[in-house]
Amino acid sequence: MKKKNITIYDIAKEANVSPTTVSRVLTNNPLVKESTRKLVLEKMKEMDFTPNEAARSLTKKQTNMIGFILPDITNPFFSQTYIEVERRAHELGYTVLLRNSMNRSEMESTHLREFVQRRVECIVFMGGRINKVDSDPNEVEEMLEVMERVPLIMVNGQMEGVECHRICTNEEDGIRKIVSHLIEQGHKHLSLIGGAEGISTTDVKVKAFQEEIEKKGLEFRDEWQIYSGYDIENGRHAMRELLQKDPRPTAIIGINDMVIYGALKECREQNVPIDNFSFVGFDDIFPSDIVYPSLTTINHNYEMLSTEIVHSVQNIIERKPVEKEILIDTRLVIRESSLVKK
Amino acid sequence: MKKKNITIYDIAKEANVSPTTVSRVLTNNPLVKESTRKLVLEKMKEMDFTPNEAARSLTKKQTNMIGFILPDITNPFFSQTYIEVERRAHELGYTVLLRNSMNRSEMESTHLREFVQRRVECIVFMGGRINKVDSDPNEVEEMLEVMERVPLIMVNGQMEGVECHRICTNEEDGIRKIVSHLIEQGHKHLSLIGGAEGISTTDVKVKAFQEEIEKKGLEFRDEWQIYSGYDIENGRHAMRELLQKDPRPTAIIGINDMVIYGALKECREQNVPIDNFSFVGFDDIFPSDIVYPSLTTINHNYEMLSTEIVHSVQNIIERKPVEKEILIDTRLVIRESSLVKK
Repeated sequence: MKKKNITIYDIAKEANVSPTTVSRVLTNNPLVKESTRKLVLEKMKEMDFTPNEAARSLTKKQTNMIGFILPDITNPFFSQTYIEVERRAHELGYTVLLRNSMNRSEMESTHLREFVQRRVECIVFMGGRINKVDSDPNEVEEMLEVMERVPLIMVNGQMEGVECHRICTNEEDGIRKIVSHLIEQGHKHLSLIGGAEGISTTDVKVKAFQEEIEKKGLEFRDEWQIYSGYDIENGRHAMRELLQKDPRPTAIIGINDMVIYGALKECREQNVPIDNFSFVGFDDIFPSDIVYPSLTTINHNYEMLSTEIVHSVQNIIERKPVEKEILIDTRLVIRESSLVKK
Repeated sequence: MKKKNITIYDIAKEANVSPTTVSRVLTNNPLVKESTRKLVLEKMKEMDFTPNEAARSLTKKQTNMIGFILPDITNPFFSQTYIEVERRAHELGYTVLLRNSMNRSEMESTHLREFVQRRVECIVFMGGRINKVDSDPNEVEEMLEVMERVPLIMVNGQMEGVECHRICTNEEDGIRKIVSHLIEQGHKHLSLIGGAEGISTTDVKVKAFQEEIEKKGLEFRDEWQIYSGYDIENGRHAMRELLQKDPRPTAIIGINDMVIYGALKECREQNVPIDNFSFVGFDDIFPSDIVYPSLTTINHNYEMLSTEIVHSVQNIIERKPVEKEILIDTRLVIRESSLVKK
């Protein structure tokens, strides 16, 4: 049933030219006479020839492939970023290879090795090792080795000793926007839940939170800032802890939207009225518009983020100048969860 | 900064052997003497040689790549299926190429063409054209052409005239489970919202719904079955329509979870108590556990679905026998939205 794959040798034979000539037609080499070119193209069509990408990429030394490593595509933050990158890359003729690392270093290594072997032209990296405040020396060395062969872009992360292009959400500014909004709503007792110490995206937010609170003349309470991880269950744990405090905060900020979904769930399980608190998340993933109350949160400007990623990839591949670091502004999306109920 | 890519010619020169010998070492050809093999491998290590996958796949006639076309990875139904497939495929040494079609036929064609050119060893197809009850003849022809070169597996879909392997969620049975559950909860007036006529996954559900209702001696009312599409906004529209009916149903089933999220939102916007209705979704995507009330729904057994997909892919590639059609049983997950409130 499977068709024999037609090769350039078959085409050459049918067109009565040399295989080199067929190959030249494929690479648009000007040495080929127009009449010969037409004949070869006709034969290709007749014989239903599709050039083998592997063979072509050996000739062109170009694969048009971009490698994309991220922690977990089932988290809408990553899928919302990824799909925009895929769409834009496709418009420019690039193919994206997606790989999930599940934040596991050995998975990241496997994917990096594969990308080098497949000769991707650029690697986009999110999460995992590039968010460790203290970089692992072995991971740094591996990244440097990879970068000798393939250029790399880090999104929302960095590694000490690894100089590369970076595209980042302005997370500090996002936190400042949240704090200002909550103060405007009359809050004085703010809490921040979720994340993990030593992970840069958490540390940046915690630091900005603390600084902003003190700048506004409010009190930062250590016990209201709880490192509890990143998922829904982690948010429930943090809320359980907060509910045991006395006094309690009046407003709760999540390191991301997921932990707030958990916090809302925990309040309900314990029959604590949701209205006792204002809630604000971070990421603006799609369920935030459908949970109840709908969640005020920080939007990453996914479209701008992905545009900048693909734009940088393209410039790097075409060896055009690229900004070392690009900072993307965020947007506060105000919904029900942070508005004071009458 | 970028390292020159070391080729087998460089290795051959350094090891003082022929390029053919180096190539034989790479393909584990037994013709190479053990001492020579060791020497070549040492040189490769010294010179930091990584074999080019494109070159290797030309030699081996194997790419270890699987193509995966699905409508939209930002929909958790697809990302929850995809990530399990990626994980299992990776364990078996395969690489998955993900492509989003956004249900657009021309995107599907582009991806199919790319997959053929990249010589993927199998294509997994979800959504779009394989869910049209009346297949488009051009699309059928294209699929047949692709299948002359690459084997194809359809997940939750089919096309008349295209004989291929199919893996399907038992959607009829899922609907029957929902109807039985609602009747047990005392409901007599059931509604089904969402989907589109002529799309097989919708038609299957509507038919099963109608049959099951009549079998149980209840009345199927045409005006309570509303084709309104698949997303949150479509669910809001359907709910708006239902709220204008007199009489109204007491239980509302969604073609998927998304439309029920929309229905809940619409009730809130119109200040209609959620408790007036029981709600049941279909898919069990992760937000269904965090919306309020948490949503009773049908789980696809994602793990089993992905296991079967990868298992079939593997058998097809290794030319082992594969079942023509595999049916995956669903599971009813009962949460708050369908339980009668006291």
